[in-house]
Amino acid sequence: MKVDGRPMRTLWPAPQRDAVFVIDQRVLPHKLRIERLADGDAVHRAIAEMWVRGAPLIGACAAYGLALHLNAGADDAQLERHAAALRGARPTAVNLAWALERMLSVLRPLPAAARRDAAWAAADAIAELDVQANAAIGRHGLPLLQAVAARKPRGQPVNVLTHCNAGWLATVDWGTATAPIYQAQAAGLPLHVWVDETRPRNQGASLTAWELGHAGVPHTVIADNAGGHLMQHGQVDLVIVGCDRVTRRGDVCNKIGTYLKALAAHDNGVPFYAAMPTSTLDLALLDGVAEIPIEARSAREVTHLSGRTADGCVLEIQLTPDGSAAANPAFDVTPARLVSGLITEHGVVAADEAALVALIAQTR
Amino acid sequence: MKVDGRPMRTLWPAPQRDAVFVIDQRVLPHKLRIERLADGDAVHRAIAEMWVRGAPLIGACAAYGLALHLNAGADDAQLERHAAALRGARPTAVNLAWALERMLSVLRPLPAAARRDAAWAAADAIAELDVQANAAIGRHGLPLLQAVAARKPRGQPVNVLTHCNAGWLATVDWGTATAPIYQAQAAGLPLHVWVDETRPRNQGASLTAWELGHAGVPHTVIADNAGGHLMQHGQVDLVIVGCDRVTRRGDVCNKIGTYLKALAAHDNGVPFYAAMPTSTLDLALLDGVAEIPIEARSAREVTHLSGRTADGCVLEIQLTPDGSAAANPAFDVTPARLVSGLITEHGVVAADEAALVALIAQTR
Repeated sequence: MKVDGRPMRTLWPAPQRDAVFVIDQRVLPHKLRIERLADGDAVHRAIAEMWVRGAPLIGACAAYGLALHLNAGADDAQLERHAAALRGARPTAVNLAWALERMLSVLRPLPAAARRDAAWAAADAIAELDVQANAAIGRHGLPLLQAVAARKPRGQPVNVLTHCNAGWLATVDWGTATAPIYQAQAAGLPLHVWVDETRPRNQGASLTAWELGHAGVPHTVIADNAGGHLMQHGQVDLVIVGCDRVTRRGDVCNKIGTYLKALAAHDNGVPFYAAMPTSTLDLALLDGVAEIPIEARSAREVTHLSGRTADGCVLEIQLTPDGSAAANPAFDVTPARLVSGLITEHGVVAADEAALVALIAQTR
Repeated sequence: MKVDGRPMRTLWPAPQRDAVFVIDQRVLPHKLRIERLADGDAVHRAIAEMWVRGAPLIGACAAYGLALHLNAGADDAQLERHAAALRGARPTAVNLAWALERMLSVLRPLPAAARRDAAWAAADAIAELDVQANAAIGRHGLPLLQAVAARKPRGQPVNVLTHCNAGWLATVDWGTATAPIYQAQAAGLPLHVWVDETRPRNQGASLTAWELGHAGVPHTVIADNAGGHLMQHGQVDLVIVGCDRVTRRGDVCNKIGTYLKALAAHDNGVPFYAAMPTSTLDLALLDGVAEIPIEARSAREVTHLSGRTADGCVLEIQLTPDGSAAANPAFDVTPARLVSGLITEHGVVAADEAALVALIAQTR
């Protein structure tokens, strides 16, 4: 997508294949800082410390991380060790494991000497696949927004609520939840997006608001607490969120707080969609609440928050009293019964086992 | 309640009846600052700018504000004008109107010369009534916690989730939602409180955590997004919140985000109680979602947040990108169907019209 008129992705390889460049998303929206990651360990750190985040972007980034590792040696032991290490950088998102598994399936059969170039080509393919999948999610999601617009008085904006950042910053390009929004904007549909700030890391307030602003999409930031009230008063036409993992029966694991919005949408008859590249589907799991491991992140993400001071510095402040503990589960699971549908790169499908198994049978 | 071993209330009159003292809650939890409010306009500002907040405390504070105004003249026109102005300081909480109406009903029949002393006595009575009501809420709520404890393995703490601050800082003393917690602590029940941070103003992270910490109640601060996940995993035994207004049929208006927690509690079979001094009941309203006016507060409360820097200053930072709008509805309404019961100073009652009308018939 564009930043100040200039096309940009979240991740791109150096032409010499000795580094990858990423946007350090920790300092957005206050600074646009590009970082050069020169080895696989740097990529691991960038994933673990959330310089890059968002399930699809993590997957592509890990693929390049493995390619960078293999620059320094690519025998079987090195291949397996580096892939295992990268897989541990974040525990919840299935795309990370998916991308590394895809890399391994390409690289394992090759002689060590051929793996380096093949790894870069495979990582490029994963990144490009993400871009194409998201563009397709956008095309398939667009009719949902057009249908809402058709029911509203002419010129009234379609009000979409989104949680966290499943925007282009969470992917290589386009985003997942935002792809239908950007497609709708391109199609001239009047739009307005309610942006959940998404505590504790505020990816909505800092990333989604930033990218929608740079793309010229009208939007309003709200506290995560506000969405239910807005739905009670008819101010949300539909909810579109991303997802970090979807089970065989359609349970959606996504950023903490998603479940609460799904409950409110269900209680108020507001359609609730998750945008899901099929790489996010984990057919090995059925009951998301029981089976998906939820990452417990640092309490400091709850007790401290950074932002921009009046004189332009980015600075961290403490919110809680000394001595108060905090807990920080990073994701929750929305049961399939609350999900109106999953917007995939192959079309919109129901959040149930039959539909998902059929989708995979047709497309993999 | 006690602060570092010293008994304290949130509000007390100067002995000379020429001022009231309040805790400036805007700088908690980082500083305990006592402010002397020397006239009715200062009280109005303290309410409007949320130096004091919490429906019961606002009511008592407004009563003292009227008494302060009347120090300077108490004819009929002054009485009505000052009461009307104070009533406008905050739009949602019914206690503000209730307390001023109670003051007027005492003062209107009196000659102007007798009103000054009567106003101070009436304000004292309102404050004392609040303390007694909250203590009674605590006694009536205690058995709910004891019943949970009786079902758990011996020594396992009862996990209570609360939203916003309906603690002693929100009242004159004891708190409403916290009164059963403090009673349970006094009774030796093992307890743990999940404290919703309560964006955008963070009354949970800054006030509830502060008062529970000073009282020695084990607690953990969480993002507002986390409660649903905790309930899905059996980590919340019951929810107790405060309320700003309750309708005749039991719809509960409380801090924005309460509705989302009530939905999650209902979805997971977790009892959801609102602690309600009967002064909070508004029999004139039936449908809370349709009829209760919801205060829209400043967008800046969403876009900016203050906290303590590493070197101990309390400072405000900006969270959102320049140019992103924000919306800030301050309350929402939880429909009665999601409320397990209302803990009042007269006992626990069902959130329905018959029970509430009967309660009022018995007690007013």
